[in-house]
Amino acid sequence: MYKIDAEVIENIAVGAALLGTGGGGDPYIGKMMALSAINEYGPARLVSPDEIDENAMYAPAAMMGAPSVLVEKFPKGDEFVRVFQKLEKYLGSEIKGVFPMEAGGVNSMIPIIVAAQLGLPLIDCDGMGRAFPELQMVTFHLNGVSSTPMAITDEKGNIGIIETVDNVWAERLARTATVEMGASTLISNYPSSGTELKRSGIANIVSLSEKLGRIIRSKEKDNQVKLQKVLDITGGYDLFTGKIVDVLRGTEGGFNRGKVIIEGLAEYTDEEVNVYIQNENLIALKNGHPLVLTPDLICLVDLETLTPVTTESLKYGKRVRLLALPCNKQWRSAKGIETVGPRYFGYDYDYDPVEELVRKERGQ
Amino acid sequence: MYKIDAEVIENIAVGAALLGTGGGGDPYIGKMMALSAINEYGPARLVSPDEIDENAMYAPAAMMGAPSVLVEKFPKGDEFVRVFQKLEKYLGSEIKGVFPMEAGGVNSMIPIIVAAQLGLPLIDCDGMGRAFPELQMVTFHLNGVSSTPMAITDEKGNIGIIETVDNVWAERLARTATVEMGASTLISNYPSSGTELKRSGIANIVSLSEKLGRIIRSKEKDNQVKLQKVLDITGGYDLFTGKIVDVLRGTEGGFNRGKVIIEGLAEYTDEEVNVYIQNENLIALKNGHPLVLTPDLICLVDLETLTPVTTESLKYGKRVRLLALPCNKQWRSAKGIETVGPRYFGYDYDYDPVEELVRKERGQ
Repeated sequence: MYKIDAEVIENIAVGAALLGTGGGGDPYIGKMMALSAINEYGPARLVSPDEIDENAMYAPAAMMGAPSVLVEKFPKGDEFVRVFQKLEKYLGSEIKGVFPMEAGGVNSMIPIIVAAQLGLPLIDCDGMGRAFPELQMVTFHLNGVSSTPMAITDEKGNIGIIETVDNVWAERLARTATVEMGASTLISNYPSSGTELKRSGIANIVSLSEKLGRIIRSKEKDNQVKLQKVLDITGGYDLFTGKIVDVLRGTEGGFNRGKVIIEGLAEYTDEEVNVYIQNENLIALKNGHPLVLTPDLICLVDLETLTPVTTESLKYGKRVRLLALPCNKQWRSAKGIETVGPRYFGYDYDYDPVEELVRKERGQ
Repeated sequence: MYKIDAEVIENIAVGAALLGTGGGGDPYIGKMMALSAINEYGPARLVSPDEIDENAMYAPAAMMGAPSVLVEKFPKGDEFVRVFQKLEKYLGSEIKGVFPMEAGGVNSMIPIIVAAQLGLPLIDCDGMGRAFPELQMVTFHLNGVSSTPMAITDEKGNIGIIETVDNVWAERLARTATVEMGASTLISNYPSSGTELKRSGIANIVSLSEKLGRIIRSKEKDNQVKLQKVLDITGGYDLFTGKIVDVLRGTEGGFNRGKVIIEGLAEYTDEEVNVYIQNENLIALKNGHPLVLTPDLICLVDLETLTPVTTESLKYGKRVRLLALPCNKQWRSAKGIETVGPRYFGYDYDYDPVEELVRKERGQ
C-alpha cells in the first residue's frame, strides 16, 4: 500500500499515457482532475490485489468515447462518483474498491478521483495493461466475466444501466448511448469479486505506470539512459525515429480514427512508418510491412523528452520515437487475438509477437 | 370492472387500431399475443381509474420503434413481463396495475398480456387517447411527470434502465437503443401514482376502444349506421372517401415515415388528399390545404367494412374513408401543441382544431 499524492499522480499520468498507446485521454486534463480531487479529499491509497478481500466486490470507473471530445466537453466533476455509486446501488452490494479499466492519461486518473472522493482503496491492477477502444477488450472478458450490469452517465446527469446477453452487446448499446450523449461518457462496468480481480486483472499496472512516469519525468539529462530504463522495465524495443509528415483523422461512431505518417530521421532516413489508430495506436507498418501489431503496444514519444504523444496531440512536424512493448501474455491466447488482434480491427495481418517481428527485422 | 376475455380483446384490438391513427402496431399480431396470454393465464380485469389506490404505483408496458418491424421480428413472449418487472425492481416498490401508454393494435394489447400474466388489474386509461411516435408525447409529460426511470428490453434479452434529466433525453436515449436493438423494443416508463393517473391519464380509453371495436365488428349490414355510431361516440367527422394511388415510405431513425396519396371517389371526385405519416397519420391536406392536423386524429378505414387501416397495410388501390376525431382537450393546451402540434413534426401549419377546419371547409 502506498499513498497517491500529487507527485505520484504526476508520475502515473505520464507513465499511463505511455501505456495508453496514444489513447486513454489527455494526461494533462486527467492529471488536473485527479490533483483537484486529492487536494479536496486527501490522498488516495494504492492497494495490491494480493491484499484485497476475495469475497468483496470491486469495480472500475472510466471514460468511454472519443478522447479528443473530452478536451471540449469538460467533466463537471460529479460524474465519476455518480456512475460508480449507481452501479453499486443497482448491484445492491457494497463496492469495496475501485480500479482502472485501462492505462491512459484520463482513464488511469478517474479511479484515483473516485478513490479519493469516496475514501476507497485504488486496486493496483487493470483489465488491459494498455488501452483499447472497446468494452469487451479486457482480460476479464477473456475469462468470461460479464461487462454488465454496467452504469453509464454524461455530464448533464443522464444515467443508464444496462444488462446484456453478452459483452459485445454491452459495447454496442453503450457505444450508441455514448454517441447520443455527445461522444464521451463515464462508465462503471465489469463488477468483479476479489477472486476475479486476482485471476483476470493485470496486476501492478498502476505502480508500473508510476515507475515509468518517474523515469520519464526525472532530471536525468541523458535521454538514452532514461530510454534504456524504460525498455528494461517493460521488455520493450526502440524501433523507429522520425518526423510526422501527415495526420489523417476523424471522429466516427464515437471513436477517434486516423493514420499518422512518419518519415524516418537519422539511421531511418528514407524509411517510412504508418501508424493506424482507433483511439489507440493499433498497428505500425514500416515501408508497408508489419513493424508492431496489436495487441502489442505501439508508443509514440517525443524524441527529445520521451513524453508520450497521445492521438489528440499528433501533428505535422513533431519528431517522435516509436517504442514497442510486448503486451500482457493473456492477450496472446487464441481468444485474446480473436478479441484484439489485427483482424478484429479489419487489418489483413496475422498477429506476430513483437519479439518475432524484431528478430525478423534484424535478420537474426 | 369487467373481464377482458377473447371477445373483448377482439373488440379492443379493432377499436384501438382506429384510435391508433395508423400507428400502434398491427392489430392482428397484437390480438394473437393477447389471446394467447388469456388462454394461458385466464382473463384480465379492466379497472376504472376511479377505483384505484391513489398512493400505489402504476406503470405502462409498450412496444417502441417502427411498428412495421414487429411483423418480422416477432416477440418471444417473455419481454412484456420482463420489462415491467425490471422497472418494478429498479423502483424498489410494487407496481399495482398496468395501463396502455397509447391506443393501437399492439400497444393496447401488451398491457393486457402483462395484466393476465401477472394477475394485475389493467387500468382503463392511457397517456395519449390516440397514438403518437415519441415518448414525451403523453399527457403525463404535459403535467411534468418524468418518463424515467424507464426500462427497455429486446427479444434477445438485453435490458436497459435509464434515468434522464428530462423527457426529451429519455426519448433520445431510448430511441438510439431501439435502433441498435433492431428497430423495435419493449418499454415500461412513466411510473405513476394513482393520483397522477387520475390527473394526467386519459380515462376510459380501453372501454372506448372496446365500444368502437364492437360497433365496427357488429353484423349490422348498413355501413352508414355503423359509421354514424362511431362518429356519435367520438364526436368525429367523415371527411373524405377515395382510392390510394401512391404510398411513399421508409424506416428512418427507428420510425416508419411516409406519405399516402388518396384520389377522391364519388362526391370527392377530382379532389386529392395527402396524409403524412411518422408511425401515425399526422396531417392530412386536401388539395394542398389542411383538412386535419395533429393532434386531432386522422383515421383511415376500409371503405366497405370500416376496419381501421394501419400504416403497414396501406397499399395502392385500397379504397378508404378518412375520419377525423377531435383529440383529448389536454393536447389543445399551449404545451400540448408545442409537444405534438404540426410544427413540432416540421409541418409549416399552425394548429387549427378539426371543428374549425370543418366549419371553414363547409363555408359555415
